[in-house]
Amino acid sequence: MNSTSSTTGGPNTLEPRSLTAWLERLPAVRERLGGAPESWTIREVGDGNLNLVFLVDGPDGSVCVKQALPYVRVAGPSWPMTPERAYYEQLYYAAVAPHVDGFIPRVFHYDPSLHAIVMERLTPHLILRRGLIGAHRYERVGRDIGEYVARAGFFTSDIAAPFEQKFDGLARFAGNKELVRISVDLIFTDPYFEAPRNRHTTPQLDRTVAALRGDAAVKAAAADLGRRFLGETQALIHGDLHSGSIMVTDDDTRVIDPEFAFYGPLGFDLGAFLGNLVLAWCAQPGLARAGEDRGGYRAWILEQARIFWTTFRDRFLGLWREHAHGDAWPAAMFRGADDAAALDLARRDYVDRLFTDTLGFAACKMIRRVVGFAHVADFDEIADPQVRARCERAALAIASHWLTRRQDYRTIDDALDALPDAARDR
Amino acid sequence: MNSTSSTTGGPNTLEPRSLTAWLERLPAVRERLGGAPESWTIREVGDGNLNLVFLVDGPDGSVCVKQALPYVRVAGPSWPMTPERAYYEQLYYAAVAPHVDGFIPRVFHYDPSLHAIVMERLTPHLILRRGLIGAHRYERVGRDIGEYVARAGFFTSDIAAPFEQKFDGLARFAGNKELVRISVDLIFTDPYFEAPRNRHTTPQLDRTVAALRGDAAVKAAAADLGRRFLGETQALIHGDLHSGSIMVTDDDTRVIDPEFAFYGPLGFDLGAFLGNLVLAWCAQPGLARAGEDRGGYRAWILEQARIFWTTFRDRFLGLWREHAHGDAWPAAMFRGADDAAALDLARRDYVDRLFTDTLGFAACKMIRRVVGFAHVADFDEIADPQVRARCERAALAIASHWLTRRQDYRTIDDALDALPDAARDR
Repeated sequence: MNSTSSTTGGPNTLEPRSLTAWLERLPAVRERLGGAPESWTIREVGDGNLNLVFLVDGPDGSVCVKQALPYVRVAGPSWPMTPERAYYEQLYYAAVAPHVDGFIPRVFHYDPSLHAIVMERLTPHLILRRGLIGAHRYERVGRDIGEYVARAGFFTSDIAAPFEQKFDGLARFAGNKELVRISVDLIFTDPYFEAPRNRHTTPQLDRTVAALRGDAAVKAAAADLGRRFLGETQALIHGDLHSGSIMVTDDDTRVIDPEFAFYGPLGFDLGAFLGNLVLAWCAQPGLARAGEDRGGYRAWILEQARIFWTTFRDRFLGLWREHAHGDAWPAAMFRGADDAAALDLARRDYVDRLFTDTLGFAACKMIRRVVGFAHVADFDEIADPQVRARCERAALAIASHWLTRRQDYRTIDDALDALPDAARDR
Repeated sequence: MNSTSSTTGGPNTLEPRSLTAWLERLPAVRERLGGAPESWTIREVGDGNLNLVFLVDGPDGSVCVKQALPYVRVAGPSWPMTPERAYYEQLYYAAVAPHVDGFIPRVFHYDPSLHAIVMERLTPHLILRRGLIGAHRYERVGRDIGEYVARAGFFTSDIAAPFEQKFDGLARFAGNKELVRISVDLIFTDPYFEAPRNRHTTPQLDRTVAALRGDAAVKAAAADLGRRFLGETQALIHGDLHSGSIMVTDDDTRVIDPEFAFYGPLGFDLGAFLGNLVLAWCAQPGLARAGEDRGGYRAWILEQARIFWTTFRDRFLGLWREHAHGDAWPAAMFRGADDAAALDLARRDYVDRLFTDTLGFAACKMIRRVVGFAHVADFDEIADPQVRARCERAALAIASHWLTRRQDYRTIDDALDALPDAARDR
């Protein structure tokens, strides 16, 4: 809808009146909400950077409506962005729904002209990042996200299904260029030089940031991961799987906001989650109130990281043993006497390489949140810049270490046990 | 044209009368041929597996017309195949033409309903494979194909251009599923088990072939390359760059038949050419007439292989230094004092990895030509099965060695110097 691209509140921008008029024409939604449209209550709650989000409550139930605006919400119309991202969001949900049922919101309706999705309202779910800032322990989250990435990743890979299925998806998601462009610029390029959109805690981090941008080995490692981000079609990835894209209760976990989805390296999703756990771990000392000891909570975060990876690994290998109907390592080739052992070795090698990738992409995701355009609340909510800088410096030290030394770590235990050392400013 | 898919000579299958009627309606073609359509002479010369090929001569000039049939020509209508492959063939030509002008035939017209391409008639060019069988020395071919792959590969990669260009191409070429399916099955799957379409020189090779199919390490290596064939979008690749897809004179080299094109690993094209040179090298003792010594010619083949790789490497690195306007290793990131050295290291590492890939994919291409469905004239024209089997066994020995030990070779000299040893049956 280019007609809406120049001003806020263009003709198709939803507000309560037009939203109600639209929803009452959708029988399934109307039935779900119940009662007369006049009785529905509507709240706009979007706190992200990109979209309008409405919660609609009726006497019988509720829905959530997400509308993509033709610009970056925080920046306003001066930074235009295609509202077609809503198309890719619902396309991703539809592609993974058969495999991750229960881990994503149900989608009731998608309107391509409004660029809007009507979906399950998640309640009383909160954004995981808020929980991590508040030191809440969601005991399922590591296991659930490990399971989620294993299932979504495995079933959209060439191991699970004939490649034709992936090529069809590849053709569609290759259109999601505007969002992939954002990832390429903000994650793999801008943080590594003095790009205009960057910011960091200044002057406290100036020296550290200058050292990072002068570290050719770090930059070469980040660039190689950036090349692979664009050049590998290992699986359909969410593309933005940080702790702000996960909604949780004590006994439920849901993944949201997949508008950055495309076929890319699976380690990018794995690294996004791991990296954001490590950011939260780095931020804890700064987030603790006076006299509050967050040592136990920090250990809990690392335990979730451990559970996340081991769950992912076990589930991915298990799915491979049970559901390998694809063209990668085709079953017909591996029916001989020695083949089971060779195949098992290949599988372990595959997930070992994924682990190395995960550390690398985690590092890229951490760095961009400290020195790039979009930061995280985990750090932003630390008011004292001296304290914040100390936490951020730890994150940069870990990330630099992982970028250049990730091959040294063979297991998640090794990598996590080394965190306190790696976090020390060098 | 599904209407033509069931029988030879369907309504749209070109023959001299309909071909003339079509060409006379194309002003550019008519002008090129000159004279009255009645004066044109037409010969059908297709000797490939898939298509009709007509040479049309007029008083002023000539053209070549290639029509894709809705089945595999050698197999007949019992093996249907989409004639849409003509679309991908002309799409590939159009994509690489700005970069490899002079190395491909000029395309004058493409008709999507006929699935036919009117292009430059190459004359007096011969198929390189015929030259290799006949021990003819085309002194430019190694250098020209090295240059060709460097230019076509570099300029369609993320190093050269913003990724959006590649994603647009990715979306289009992802439709070429039927031909990619053939590559997946015939190159990476069928040769490694007793698939019905396979054949080999029997009984002479029975034991060797059984050993190959029982070699779990060889199969694991082939499967990993097969995974990467489907999972990496490094560049737009020709997809079938063997010595039968290259037409030569003593001073001109042209690449034809790119209907298998898609975005894949560049090592696949490099390996196709190298592997087919090595097949020709293996076949020479069997092709020599009584009393003929082909030792000198074998050395010439290896010299062309050496020139091919070193030309590719030098040209690719040169293009990277001069024309890197893409998102992989973005220039903006590498402007610091130590960056030139780091970038140079990254470039060398990239081409070194391409070299390892090249040996691996070459091996896959060699194996499928000895134990799979489609063989090569280099071996087929050796009448004595004992002699032929000896040559083919050498090819399998080299390919198995390269598949499992390719990391041991750092340079083309090392790899080629080890060939006589690797060729010995183990």
